[in-house]
Amino acid sequence: MGGTESGATRQEQERSRVTRQKLMSAAIEVLVEQGWAGATVGAIAERAGVSRGACQHHFPTRAALVAAAVEHVFHQQMEELSRRAKLLPPSRRRVEPLLNLLHDIYAGPLFTAATHLWVAAVADAELKTRLLPLQAHVGREVHRLTVELLGLEDRDPGVRDSVRATLDLLRGLALANLLQDDTARRRKVIAHWARIFEAQLHPD
Amino acid sequence: MGGTESGATRQEQERSRVTRQKLMSAAIEVLVEQGWAGATVGAIAERAGVSRGACQHHFPTRAALVAAAVEHVFHQQMEELSRRAKLLPPSRRRVEPLLNLLHDIYAGPLFTAATHLWVAAVADAELKTRLLPLQAHVGREVHRLTVELLGLEDRDPGVRDSVRATLDLLRGLALANLLQDDTARRRKVIAHWARIFEAQLHPD
Repeated sequence: MGGTESGATRQEQERSRVTRQKLMSAAIEVLVEQGWAGATVGAIAERAGVSRGACQHHFPTRAALVAAAVEHVFHQQMEELSRRAKLLPPSRRRVEPLLNLLHDIYAGPLFTAATHLWVAAVADAELKTRLLPLQAHVGREVHRLTVELLGLEDRDPGVRDSVRATLDLLRGLALANLLQDDTARRRKVIAHWARIFEAQLHPD
Repeated sequence: MGGTESGATRQEQERSRVTRQKLMSAAIEVLVEQGWAGATVGAIAERAGVSRGACQHHFPTRAALVAAAVEHVFHQQMEELSRRAKLLPPSRRRVEPLLNLLHDIYAGPLFTAATHLWVAAVADAELKTRLLPLQAHVGREVHRLTVELLGLEDRDPGVRDSVRATLDLLRGLALANLLQDDTARRRKVIAHWARIFEAQLHPD
């Protein structure tokens, strides 16, 4: 393979990557504004400035497109969480600051877009088929990362159940935060929960 | 006012009550199946077997109708919760059975319908204006009833924060339960949290 040909292939791959990213960002935006009913392939392609045909070339159905979008943005946010968690001051007691970082992620547009999808999938079998494996994957990843960032030992069943409960709590707090800034109440709940969790980790 | 006239008025009031109830039940059903975008006044009136005009006589806008429906079904379910909680065997340790009862309510069609509304209201100012006072009212009521059914003293800040966290946790568990039966995992999380909460209430 000559150098020029390879350069052209790289350019094509890069264009393709950029198009996919535009479509996935647009999918999240349109979902937040218009829900699943409004997030048609046409509306998402138009928002991305991409033709319908190009959209269908990259994602065969809109269920495939939105599921890919949620997964892509989720991974970006997990990387962002890792970066920010590494900037926390070193301390044995890091549950509360870490839960506040995690909540910032749960309280963003990804959560709003994903909630539209999850609730629409209750009555949409094709969408549900796409979302169930994604739910399992996202659940495992955020659990694994939380355990890692807290420096915990996941083989302890009590720790595992506390991490599970913590992530369920954060989802519930994010729902309460959808329509108004619930920060004051949330801070109290997270501080209370973190005290209980820390007492379980470091009984002294 | 004569007896006949009064009887006619009572009949009219009864008819009016039945029509309102049909419309509110239909609103929840249509929301679960079609989301906010599909839950038009026409679709809800048709499902209820009521004319559009009669629907508009009872509820001026669809935002008013769906908010009334959520509030009505919520109150029915709080009464049901009270009845079922009174059937629990008397015990000092009633957090876990009560949380399982509460979860049954969070896991039903009302939660699905309400989630459609809450997430749609992120981008719909009129709906948001209807839902914010409802969110505050529902939050206060379920908190008050939980405190009462657990026989707690709400003036204790630690107890108040634990009840808040419990209700946020249940909302998060209900989200995880939308697309698949999450009972086995949920039971573990509820049992784990109930042990922690009980230890806080009865340190011995």
